[in-house]
Amino acid sequence: MITSQSDSDRLIVGIDAGGTSTRATLLTRAGDCVGYGRSGSGNPTSAGAGLAGESIVDAVGQALAAAGREIGAIDHVVAAMAGHGASGEVGWLADALASAGYEGALDFESDLLALYFSGTAEKDGYAIVSGTGAAVIRVVDGRLEATADGVGWLLGDRGSGFWLGHQAALAAVEDLDGRGPATALTAAVVDAMQLVPSEFPLAYGRHAQLEALIRTIYLGRPVELARLAPLVFGVAGDDEIARGILVRAGELLAQSFGAVHRGPGPLVVGGSVLAQEGLLSETFRRLVREREPEVRFIPVADGVVGAAALALRHAGAEIDAAGHARLAASVTAARAR
Amino acid sequence: MITSQSDSDRLIVGIDAGGTSTRATLLTRAGDCVGYGRSGSGNPTSAGAGLAGESIVDAVGQALAAAGREIGAIDHVVAAMAGHGASGEVGWLADALASAGYEGALDFESDLLALYFSGTAEKDGYAIVSGTGAAVIRVVDGRLEATADGVGWLLGDRGSGFWLGHQAALAAVEDLDGRGPATALTAAVVDAMQLVPSEFPLAYGRHAQLEALIRTIYLGRPVELARLAPLVFGVAGDDEIARGILVRAGELLAQSFGAVHRGPGPLVVGGSVLAQEGLLSETFRRLVREREPEVRFIPVADGVVGAAALALRHAGAEIDAAGHARLAASVTAARAR
Repeated sequence: MITSQSDSDRLIVGIDAGGTSTRATLLTRAGDCVGYGRSGSGNPTSAGAGLAGESIVDAVGQALAAAGREIGAIDHVVAAMAGHGASGEVGWLADALASAGYEGALDFESDLLALYFSGTAEKDGYAIVSGTGAAVIRVVDGRLEATADGVGWLLGDRGSGFWLGHQAALAAVEDLDGRGPATALTAAVVDAMQLVPSEFPLAYGRHAQLEALIRTIYLGRPVELARLAPLVFGVAGDDEIARGILVRAGELLAQSFGAVHRGPGPLVVGGSVLAQEGLLSETFRRLVREREPEVRFIPVADGVVGAAALALRHAGAEIDAAGHARLAASVTAARAR
Repeated sequence: MITSQSDSDRLIVGIDAGGTSTRATLLTRAGDCVGYGRSGSGNPTSAGAGLAGESIVDAVGQALAAAGREIGAIDHVVAAMAGHGASGEVGWLADALASAGYEGALDFESDLLALYFSGTAEKDGYAIVSGTGAAVIRVVDGRLEATADGVGWLLGDRGSGFWLGHQAALAAVEDLDGRGPATALTAAVVDAMQLVPSEFPLAYGRHAQLEALIRTIYLGRPVELARLAPLVFGVAGDDEIARGILVRAGELLAQSFGAVHRGPGPLVVGGSVLAQEGLLSETFRRLVREREPEVRFIPVADGVVGAAALALRHAGAEIDAAGHARLAASVTAARAR
């Protein structure tokens, strides 16, 4: 027997689906988070559609369990993720949720817009993220109006973790083959990659470590170079080459901001690269302030609060600054439980 | 019944195995080319070991047929190819030749050393190639002593066809998303890739052509960007960005030369990029002359003559300048038949 519920009793789910982990918030229409769940990768590009669907269903199930509710109590799910509008193929998540018994509405949102609304309730402003990739958006009247970069490792993501790791690898290669200057990055990269010098004859007249480095990098996927990014921060104290890479990354991120900048507004800042204090962040902030002296930088850890805010908006509830603060506090409390 | 032959009657084969085509020369010990054959890719990395082996056997068979000889007449095969010393796995070619009835010796050589000896008989000098990839070698006493670059598209090949095509794609992406200046490369890249703008909503606030460009490039393999290289030469007459890319490519190739340069010697020049006259080649030659005013540039079309010269050396025949000229002339004559 299906129990009738009044519309205002029905719950909403906001999902922040990333390449590494997925976070779900269970929300009342009044804007309170009553349950939270966390699972693995919810991005179909990195995890595959099957695993991504399972991760999201798992995170939703945890949020329901935390609140002592069933899936029938939800009538709207909003999933914020990268690539949400590019593939056009969204059936994978509708199917996964239907298999779990879900019968309500499903909408997709930009992960960058979720990041933005994690930091502010203002309708106009900017968000930048630099993690494995890097992108900047301009938000106008609550909508994503323009993006700079975010075009992936082969075509951009300038100033991202991939970009930093790639620059570290290039600096090591050019040091070892004589095209570039000596740098502490070389020993750091060789050490981090646990290189075993080649057993085969060095028919190219190359350093054995260089042969091993080249072979190891091409055996992996290019984006795995992002794992070398911490080395650039790590050796920068004593190394001019590493310091130059950090300054350049800050310049490139500021340049991407400049490409979307059209006037005042807060700048929400996310991702592991800009979370690290030092030369990169300082360069970035200095150059952004040259464009926009009154800019407020709002650091955020992830897009969970913003995904919740976007879910509430899809369900018809608009959030002001006070509502945003309350939502953020209730998400923090639900995460701590 | 096996007919006994004197050692001096036995023939030698030199193979220039490339990613696109494979060329075989059938040689007498006196240093004359008596047969020539041409087939598809003989590089196991690009074609797979099975197809690469078939291509080489096919090219050898054609060379034998041209001379009216059987495979039993050959007692030494020398194959020049990229990656010859890096993989250490050479059984694929020994097996393919044995299946065709070959019972003689097999040696591998560097494709870059073959390129060098296509241009000169001198024992000390340099060779540079810029085709899809780019590398420079130093030759000392007839051996490959040092290599700069040649480390592949992800780690280098600076100034190569891949590098030029990648720069064209980056310039188009940055123009379309507002991070970079307007350039004629944008329309040229969009046109060359026959882009169909996305049917899906532009959820990133991006130009439809940019979405289509990004999607198309990531559907292909990165090295396919080398196909865009001709666009940079094509629009350079009217476009400052394209001209800057050509100058930078020339500088990067000269920088790689600088990394192996240790004194006088001829510079053998191969590959489609440096074969094109104009800003890139002029920049390269000007910067090389600043280091080595008396340098002789020796352009070559491929490594066929050098692979033949290396095969003769492996079989015990050393070649002087006169012998080199005779070998080159007989190869040219055999190719024309």
